[in-house]
Amino acid sequence: MMLSSIKRLLIGRPLKSNELGEQKLSKTKALAILSSDALSSVAYGPEQILIVLFSVGAAAFWYSLPIGIGVLILLTALILSYRQIIFAYPQGGGAYVVSKNNLGMNAGLVAGGSLLVDYILTVSVSVSAGTDAITSAFPALHPYNVDTAIVFVILITLLNLRGVTESASILAYPVYLFILALFILIVVGFYHLATGDTAPNVHAAIGTPVQGMTLFILLRAFSSGSSALTGVEAISNAIPNFKAPAAKNAAKTLMLMGGCLAFLFSGIVLLAFLYGVAPNEEVTAVSQIAEETFGRHFMYFFIQGTTALILILAANTGYSAFPLLAVNLAKDKFIPRMFLIRGDRLGYSNGIIILGIASIILILAFQAKTEHLIPLYAAGVFIPFTLAQTGMMVKWLREKPNGWITKFIINTIGAAICFSITLIFFITKFGQIWSILIFLPLIILIFHRINKHYQAVGEQLRITTCEAPITIEGNIIIVPVAGITHVVENSLNYAKSLSPDQIIAVYVAFEKEAEHQFEEKWKAWQPDVRLVTLRSYYRSIIHPLTKFIDTVERKASEANYQVTVVIPQFIPKHSWENILHNQSSLLIRTFLLYRKNVVITTVPFHLKK
Amino acid sequence: MMLSSIKRLLIGRPLKSNELGEQKLSKTKALAILSSDALSSVAYGPEQILIVLFSVGAAAFWYSLPIGIGVLILLTALILSYRQIIFAYPQGGGAYVVSKNNLGMNAGLVAGGSLLVDYILTVSVSVSAGTDAITSAFPALHPYNVDTAIVFVILITLLNLRGVTESASILAYPVYLFILALFILIVVGFYHLATGDTAPNVHAAIGTPVQGMTLFILLRAFSSGSSALTGVEAISNAIPNFKAPAAKNAAKTLMLMGGCLAFLFSGIVLLAFLYGVAPNEEVTAVSQIAEETFGRHFMYFFIQGTTALILILAANTGYSAFPLLAVNLAKDKFIPRMFLIRGDRLGYSNGIIILGIASIILILAFQAKTEHLIPLYAAGVFIPFTLAQTGMMVKWLREKPNGWITKFIINTIGAAICFSITLIFFITKFGQIWSILIFLPLIILIFHRINKHYQAVGEQLRITTCEAPITIEGNIIIVPVAGITHVVENSLNYAKSLSPDQIIAVYVAFEKEAEHQFEEKWKAWQPDVRLVTLRSYYRSIIHPLTKFIDTVERKASEANYQVTVVIPQFIPKHSWENILHNQSSLLIRTFLLYRKNVVITTVPFHLKK
Repeated sequence: MMLSSIKRLLIGRPLKSNELGEQKLSKTKALAILSSDALSSVAYGPEQILIVLFSVGAAAFWYSLPIGIGVLILLTALILSYRQIIFAYPQGGGAYVVSKNNLGMNAGLVAGGSLLVDYILTVSVSVSAGTDAITSAFPALHPYNVDTAIVFVILITLLNLRGVTESASILAYPVYLFILALFILIVVGFYHLATGDTAPNVHAAIGTPVQGMTLFILLRAFSSGSSALTGVEAISNAIPNFKAPAAKNAAKTLMLMGGCLAFLFSGIVLLAFLYGVAPNEEVTAVSQIAEETFGRHFMYFFIQGTTALILILAANTGYSAFPLLAVNLAKDKFIPRMFLIRGDRLGYSNGIIILGIASIILILAFQAKTEHLIPLYAAGVFIPFTLAQTGMMVKWLREKPNGWITKFIINTIGAAICFSITLIFFITKFGQIWSILIFLPLIILIFHRINKHYQAVGEQLRITTCEAPITIEGNIIIVPVAGITHVVENSLNYAKSLSPDQIIAVYVAFEKEAEHQFEEKWKAWQPDVRLVTLRSYYRSIIHPLTKFIDTVERKASEANYQVTVVIPQFIPKHSWENILHNQSSLLIRTFLLYRKNVVITTVPFHLKK
Repeated sequence: MMLSSIKRLLIGRPLKSNELGEQKLSKTKALAILSSDALSSVAYGPEQILIVLFSVGAAAFWYSLPIGIGVLILLTALILSYRQIIFAYPQGGGAYVVSKNNLGMNAGLVAGGSLLVDYILTVSVSVSAGTDAITSAFPALHPYNVDTAIVFVILITLLNLRGVTESASILAYPVYLFILALFILIVVGFYHLATGDTAPNVHAAIGTPVQGMTLFILLRAFSSGSSALTGVEAISNAIPNFKAPAAKNAAKTLMLMGGCLAFLFSGIVLLAFLYGVAPNEEVTAVSQIAEETFGRHFMYFFIQGTTALILILAANTGYSAFPLLAVNLAKDKFIPRMFLIRGDRLGYSNGIIILGIASIILILAFQAKTEHLIPLYAAGVFIPFTLAQTGMMVKWLREKPNGWITKFIINTIGAAICFSITLIFFITKFGQIWSILIFLPLIILIFHRINKHYQAVGEQLRITTCEAPITIEGNIIIVPVAGITHVVENSLNYAKSLSPDQIIAVYVAFEKEAEHQFEEKWKAWQPDVRLVTLRSYYRSIIHPLTKFIDTVERKASEANYQVTVVIPQFIPKHSWENILHNQSSLLIRTFLLYRKNVVITTVPFHLKK
């Protein structure tokens, strides 16, 4: 009772199934919910490029411009490709569905498996990064980094359990504020440069030859920069959450997000170059630009604040996409069925809860340190990207609809770029991401084992008309008794009322004297019920009882008799009182039910005080 | 199966109940097991005195000698008093039993409650202190202090689950080695002083007046020193573990322990004074004396090593005493009955496991830092000490056996000293031990609530001949069905074989179409079984089902009919596969059993693959 009131308070009243339509997303809300992951990566993506270049020297910073252009091309290719996926698969599912339908089940599982893990990483990485931003501003909070991050995960989980639109209403503000903040920053920054209020402070001009610059480092910097593109696929997974016309609205939202992302990304990369920003462990690149532009005034703190907020909210993208992907995998029977159940508020609550728990475990395991997680996360994202694009290529080749050649070319470019980036990741950062090669096959293996189990169960449960069931010729009832009490009396009365062919009461004695004493008392109390007493030398009730039941069952089954064990159980008035009793009934019941072919009947005796 | 092999490996084969005698303790083993707590306090007791005196100045160190003599007097009084308790209560139980029998139940519960908590503190404090000693020797281990302590607790818990004598064999060596090590240290130390190899280096002569020395500080130092006496009561609690004649053997062991403790304590206090040892955060007093005497050679490391070992093993005293005290409290129905059960190895395994878990929680909560726990622990010990001695006074006054006056005087002195020390603790260290005043009443309250529950249950279960049970006039069986499968068929066959007055199959539909479809299929499949379909608007199976069962139950109970819910359940071949199914049967069963007055029957359908 109390539990359910707390639940009501935290996540709201239960919703009827037919209220589902009201929970759908408008374009503006969808942009807020589904693009916070992608947009937030602007806060760290450009910096990742500079960090790699800095390993060669400050003179290499000009390379950030061509690399930035490369990332923009990649972004354009991805956005166009995913736009095609949205229209081709309006029911959602993204990389998993596309790969499964076009490249076969195993390709689909590779995509689905890596996305599932990636969404967990999204949550852990974003929340940890956002917490970092906050504790940088308030150093007193630093020792509570992990705790703070966990509190945020719990809050976001609760928001999502309340339901998609309600969380959107709350989450929309920070996302738009972040876009606004960076927009102002970029515009004012360039205005200052144009009017000469700020002098450009370029480290080295474009084209300066740099000692030690290799293709390897260039590729590494490029792959680091492309980590700013994680989260682009979220919209294509979540089409069913959109208001009708879902596909059209999703496509428009995707284009809008692409535009924002391109603008913010190029603005930050350019300003960083013109201001001569160098990577600094203590201060982020965005923070340096903001300080240079506004000084440590209101706007600076506004930018820092919205950045921290959006980083934490980026986690929410994971919460929108993970449960939907899980539904797709569960429908195909590769993960447990529980992911199909809609909770009180119509969200797929099991997916939401599992995602929350898994990310808290990751945060604890990595102590909220993001640097080890980001490469894993980025590399993991580009595997399903590649598979989805390749799947689309196959689809166009096979179906050849009107104008398929343009579509084919777009997806081919997308596939080629994504595949290259995946390769670059494995070549340049193998030390950090080798574990993917172990976990991914393991996950696929688990998917297949689960699937095999569901198939087997289905076959065994299906009614095939030809088989006639064995009829039960009679019933034998065994009643384990622990003493001469009302609970036992109650159970015996019930057993008698079923008028079975035989009732046997069984008493397990620990000592010889107890055995005789009990037999005599029983004869006086229930002379018409047969009593069997068993000796237990190892203080276990279950073992002698099981042995006895085995003997009875063997004889009974020869004559097609069914054995029922009737277990007397008293139920305390308050549930906490259960720990005061040894729960032997529960133990016996569980053991017998799972191990033996007997029917278990529990006769409750409700205590009144 | 696998679980039970692991258990076998860790704690050994199960023992028969009649093998109990073989597990009893000889005097030498008992000394090792039951006195490690008391003896180990020599490693920190003298130092506690010096730390308090140091707050006034080094000139105050000479006060450690009169304080030391005070502690010795206290020790003598305690040993003599407890010797009398052993002979008066040879069945064991110590402070709890003595207070209960002579001062009334509530005094007994105060003693029992504080001892229960104290044994948990014993384990946490000793293991943490021992771990500190180890990580001081190997600073690289320092960041893993908490983890190391937890590993030790787990190891000691496992040893104790193996059984009392087997752990004694292992634990005897370190205790005797520790006694040997300190004995050599004291003898050689005095030999050096006598021969003039080491010059005495006294800070200030005995009797030097000290500025700022107050009675408060003196009392504080005395109470700190008396923390060396914790653990003295352990033997009196554990008499049933001794070989026959138990009481005599226990008394001899107690005297032996008292002698050892007095010798080691006074030796260390004297040497510390003569060597002019000052308390040092980095190096313990014993370590300073050892270094002065032997230099950093083999003997030094031998002394440090055995000290660390005995500190960790002192925890074992808690493991011997806690389960036995718990048995006494459980027999009187103040704590859950499960503490009465002997495990596979005949130890009271539930007590052992709960103690292990509770101390791990304390270690985690206090991050293995002992300084906050020791005062709490020492103060908690002197409360039951006082109660036990007062109880003995009352006993002698009431019974007046031969020579009772001497006995009365001994216990009166003991009671007076213990009471004074308790007072001193509360006056001089209130800031550290106030929480006792909250927790102790709370524990007593819980004891009483548990007791009340057991009394109430006993009354309700007792067969009183006058009451005739209500006879069951007929049976109605409700079978919740989820589909048309072999599992359901199986359950229906069973229900039919019981030939009840009515069988009702119930189907919960989430959508209108599903409802009609199912009704038609059912008519074709089981035309003779009545089907009721229910609509669920909130995607819950339990709610509509419960409502329906309520209606049926109300009508049935008017006519003294019994309602049985037959739940079809398929049992997967491997238990891990259970997480792949939604466990609706289990949920329905648990909910109905605890909330409604219906009999629950589970018909298993064992899957074969």
